[in-house]
Amino acid sequence: MTQTRSAAELDHRRAVNVALLGAGVVGSQVVRLLTEQADELAARIGAPLHLVGVAVRRPQRHPDVPADLLTTDAAELVSRDEVDVVVELVGGIEPVRGLLLTALKNGKSVVSANKALLAEDGAALAAAADESGADLYYEASVAGAIPLLRPIQQSLAGDRIVRVAGIVNGTTNFILSAMASSGANYTEALEEAGRLGYAEADPTADVDGYDAASKAAILASLAFHTRVTADDVYREGIRDVTAADIAAAKALGCTVKLLAICEQTDGSVSARVHPAMIPRSHPLASVSGAYNAVFIEAAAAGQLMFYGQGAGGPQTASAVLGDLVAAARNRVIGGRGPRDTAHAALPVLAMGDTHTRYHVALDVTDRAGVLAQVAGVFAEHGVSIATVRQEGRGGTSGSDADDGAPGPKDATLVIVTHSASDAALAATVEALTGLDAVRGVAGVLRVEGLGRPVTELGGGS
Amino acid sequence: MTQTRSAAELDHRRAVNVALLGAGVVGSQVVRLLTEQADELAARIGAPLHLVGVAVRRPQRHPDVPADLLTTDAAELVSRDEVDVVVELVGGIEPVRGLLLTALKNGKSVVSANKALLAEDGAALAAAADESGADLYYEASVAGAIPLLRPIQQSLAGDRIVRVAGIVNGTTNFILSAMASSGANYTEALEEAGRLGYAEADPTADVDGYDAASKAAILASLAFHTRVTADDVYREGIRDVTAADIAAAKALGCTVKLLAICEQTDGSVSARVHPAMIPRSHPLASVSGAYNAVFIEAAAAGQLMFYGQGAGGPQTASAVLGDLVAAARNRVIGGRGPRDTAHAALPVLAMGDTHTRYHVALDVTDRAGVLAQVAGVFAEHGVSIATVRQEGRGGTSGSDADDGAPGPKDATLVIVTHSASDAALAATVEALTGLDAVRGVAGVLRVEGLGRPVTELGGGS
Repeated sequence: MTQTRSAAELDHRRAVNVALLGAGVVGSQVVRLLTEQADELAARIGAPLHLVGVAVRRPQRHPDVPADLLTTDAAELVSRDEVDVVVELVGGIEPVRGLLLTALKNGKSVVSANKALLAEDGAALAAAADESGADLYYEASVAGAIPLLRPIQQSLAGDRIVRVAGIVNGTTNFILSAMASSGANYTEALEEAGRLGYAEADPTADVDGYDAASKAAILASLAFHTRVTADDVYREGIRDVTAADIAAAKALGCTVKLLAICEQTDGSVSARVHPAMIPRSHPLASVSGAYNAVFIEAAAAGQLMFYGQGAGGPQTASAVLGDLVAAARNRVIGGRGPRDTAHAALPVLAMGDTHTRYHVALDVTDRAGVLAQVAGVFAEHGVSIATVRQEGRGGTSGSDADDGAPGPKDATLVIVTHSASDAALAATVEALTGLDAVRGVAGVLRVEGLGRPVTELGGGS
Repeated sequence: MTQTRSAAELDHRRAVNVALLGAGVVGSQVVRLLTEQADELAARIGAPLHLVGVAVRRPQRHPDVPADLLTTDAAELVSRDEVDVVVELVGGIEPVRGLLLTALKNGKSVVSANKALLAEDGAALAAAADESGADLYYEASVAGAIPLLRPIQQSLAGDRIVRVAGIVNGTTNFILSAMASSGANYTEALEEAGRLGYAEADPTADVDGYDAASKAAILASLAFHTRVTADDVYREGIRDVTAADIAAAKALGCTVKLLAICEQTDGSVSARVHPAMIPRSHPLASVSGAYNAVFIEAAAAGQLMFYGQGAGGPQTASAVLGDLVAAARNRVIGGRGPRDTAHAALPVLAMGDTHTRYHVALDVTDRAGVLAQVAGVFAEHGVSIATVRQEGRGGTSGSDADDGAPGPKDATLVIVTHSASDAALAATVEALTGLDAVRGVAGVLRVEGLGRPVTELGGGS
């Protein structure tokens, strides 16, 4: 039986030398795990891991990192001949892109958590890795601790993925969960998120959907063996989600989530990020707080779900370490990671051509014929209506106060459509605002059933 | 950008030759996928896959397999020099063990779905693979389509797993789900399962927990880097679960599931399979029908859940194909799978020493002092009581009919304990039957919270 050898005993074998870029929330955990688990890691790799340098901006801020490892010159560190694997936890596009391209071209393997870079220019990095035979792993760039990219690239390599959809941003999920549980409005929930550390001082990347869009690009590229960049992803954040939207969802037995949805149909792919109502019975509806969950639907495997913590120092470090062990092992045995098999880019559907469903709440004047007019507009645009509900705000005498206060004869019409092109749906809403009887659009939210009714999970048995 | 090459264009590269053992429910799907996805598979591997032979018992039963590939001589097929990878989908211990050991010793990689063999003698197979440098993959042996073993062995290679727990047998989960939803008793639910194809003619392997125990052994071995065989796993099936147990669970806001639970604490490991009540709010409680779900708790990653279909031809074939692509790729590039890093065997805790909680329903004589007596027995065995509930079956005149019918002064005492050693709990139940006041034990079920309260999933947000 194979015994564990201590790191010291394996020293006579060439160590795998690691250069670490960044020692922040995640990097400091990587340093800790490399130290605490040195023996176990060495046993799993077949050689010890040696951390040869840690590049940071301000050395004095990293008392936990051995001083002799600290450097401010990332370019020099990455260029050292002895370095086998570069672990990049800095983030951002430049100067990281140049550093990693150089490292890959020089045959050094790269482990990264950099979703923005991978989403924007993963192609160039993958090509450089393919050319030199080095590995490029980035499990940590999507969904924190949850193994997702390796299952997609390796476990499902013999299958055909048709959809990847889920909750991939903890900040926005926390905010929406808070709005749903307490009735708070967006601003209040955002403040709470900031207080509790779930949102950064500048929450734009999260609340405007940039973070989720980068992850969607990465997921779509890997799942469909094509190139999807962040720019290809339709992106809509949660700034315009109101407490009224949340209440409307509840009334329909739904929950509002910021979803990343990647689909492949008939030779083209689509990737989008936007808030949507999903049925309460759907497993994703139960994913709250800062947890993430991703559904994958594949032709043979059927529906799979992966769930866990999408961010955090130790959580992301777990994913980094898994990639590092794989990259290091390949250095020891001379192996390589999965083959980059991107096709010539599959066409990416514009959002307008993507089929979705809308929930539309209209403030209307409560008089005869309004419903017929409204229904007529939907019909003109080829959009079928699934349900209509009218909530009269009633009253006795008429009045059209210009201050917008509900007059005694106003009502709310709530329409849920069947599936139609997003362009037709958007055009319908635009046209509705032109009707005299329509005082305004109270809210528009997409409705997602995510492919097919999921009866097996959710709601107990 | 890397282009897809057709299988024909890659022909000049040495193909990877595959021998398939078995063409049943799963094997026939593997043959289908190998044909339908030949080009995609070749692109992902970097060389075409050639199916060189399919060993079956009765060739006439496999009209979908090209006749020139069919053979009844598995040993001969596996010994052909040209064969690179053996895919084994036959099952059973012998003669498969001998065939696979020979193949591995001769440097042929093996992809298997054989949980019984892997659970009983995975050690010998892994040693043979390690010795010759061949790959041994068996994702398909546990949880069907759900990527689980690769995440454990590779994605979490840099982490420390403390618990793997979940529902890994669809037959028993279907039966328990049916009992819960319809109030049926075990026999009725088993019949329904058989009618719908969820249970085999002889359901023993499933209902007595052998299937789940094999999977638990495999999961524990990989998660804790040690050797756990099927014999090491405490095994209790669902034959003794009654409709009353299900109702008792419902009354407590719980659901009864057959759980496989593998834990590592203080240098020893435990692996067990038994029915248990779990809180309705726990995500596993919502896993119904033939779906499987496994929770993994790791030191850095925290809680992860993997969910999907645990069985079925295409589903299991998906897992087989994923392993086959990995094994084939390693043949092309000269790489190898994860290093077998089993320690000298960690001690396996006996079930008696494992800490659990009991739910005990006692038929007692309803008179003063009974509760004190019963509580005294728990105290004598060092078992703390969490909750007690007495349900009087009441009445006016006393009678002790020997036919066991509840007399007017009988009652049911329902006790839920705190955590204690299973041995102490079992001894307590034994001692209770000796009390005069105790007419009988109506039911005993373990209660599992699975580590810690999971508030983030389940119950909506």
